[in-house]
Amino acid sequence: MRIDIITVLPELLKSPFDASILKRAIEKGLVDVHFHNLREYTTGNYRQVDDYQFGGGAGMVLMVEPIDKCISKLKSEREYDEIIYMTPDGKTLNQGLANEISLKKNLIILCGHYKGVDQRVRDMFVTREVSIGDYVLSGGELAAAVLCDAVIRLLPGVLNDETSALTDTFQDNLLAPPVYTRPASYKGKEVPKILLSGDFPKIERWREEQAIKRTKERRPDLLK
Amino acid sequence: MRIDIITVLPELLKSPFDASILKRAIEKGLVDVHFHNLREYTTGNYRQVDDYQFGGGAGMVLMVEPIDKCISKLKSEREYDEIIYMTPDGKTLNQGLANEISLKKNLIILCGHYKGVDQRVRDMFVTREVSIGDYVLSGGELAAAVLCDAVIRLLPGVLNDETSALTDTFQDNLLAPPVYTRPASYKGKEVPKILLSGDFPKIERWREEQAIKRTKERRPDLLK
Repeated sequence: MRIDIITVLPELLKSPFDASILKRAIEKGLVDVHFHNLREYTTGNYRQVDDYQFGGGAGMVLMVEPIDKCISKLKSEREYDEIIYMTPDGKTLNQGLANEISLKKNLIILCGHYKGVDQRVRDMFVTREVSIGDYVLSGGELAAAVLCDAVIRLLPGVLNDETSALTDTFQDNLLAPPVYTRPASYKGKEVPKILLSGDFPKIERWREEQAIKRTKERRPDLLK
Repeated sequence: MRIDIITVLPELLKSPFDASILKRAIEKGLVDVHFHNLREYTTGNYRQVDDYQFGGGAGMVLMVEPIDKCISKLKSEREYDEIIYMTPDGKTLNQGLANEISLKKNLIILCGHYKGVDQRVRDMFVTREVSIGDYVLSGGELAAAVLCDAVIRLLPGVLNDETSALTDTFQDNLLAPPVYTRPASYKGKEVPKILLSGDFPKIERWREEQAIKRTKERRPDLLK
């Protein structure tokens, strides 16, 4: 998979891709991530990427021309499956959508900033709009990092057995059961006896019951 | 506001807090953010922070003792309003919850990793569990950065007029209307005439109509 991220703040994205699982996925060659600084696609001395809204009102808007130039250059180099715009009014990301996007080959992810991008960018270029949740962030950069993390960890070979995605929350519409590790007793708080029993079929049943119980209590909507 | 983030990967969090609005909020003294590396609260030569699950199964679990030590040290230094654990089975973050958390003074945010933390950490210390959405990430670090961004931009003085949060998506349960900036015509695509009219009451009405239309089309659930 190749991901090209278009942003006015490539420096904001640096450390999340330079640590842990994303770093290892890139080093193993399982995904190739490129940042594109929108300012490099401007004309004029001021490297202007945004301007005031037509019609007045607070908040700057990213201009269509630099984004067009950047996307056009990338599209001249290879085919893209999707041009994804991160925006709070996009389709809300969930595990199913992450699974679906993880099957793509080449992606462009466009990060908005402040009030977002000129609507014409969305009309002319964007194939999919994604939101990571019902809240507003100062830009699309963290949202892009979240989308990349959710997707890249699903690529074959990225996670080893120790970090397997198969038993994750949401993969079967159930929340995960409680987990415990050593010590078995800590300040009077004990690990449930069954987990120390060595009776694995029984442990599996307990975990399933706990997962269903937790989902009923916390997220009954997932069971519908 | 003071935020203490407990993590096994402080390096992952570096750049999001070192750019744009979060950086400026910290520089202005409007928020004070501290990272705490869980490895510094371990005993023994291996600086072990995680261990296998009791009962078997893939995925490492963060141990209770280092987390207890770190939280106890912080709590001995000041009072905390909340100890928030980032987890996909927590309460889903939305703008209302971000508003609520933005009124707190001192927060601890605990990031899970891999399979999360020992359940006893949640039982003994955590006061609130927050999810940023129905998808799984490789750790709680990006989720913590997202929560911080959503909350910090709401603190008085962080945003100036140009980036005002008042007209944001979700603040009134409506998605934002389309925005446009110069040029008025781009490759045959025109800005809606009304936005160039200078008739501000009319522009306001158009924006409200567009916001309602977009919300009906994309997120009818928000109008209920």
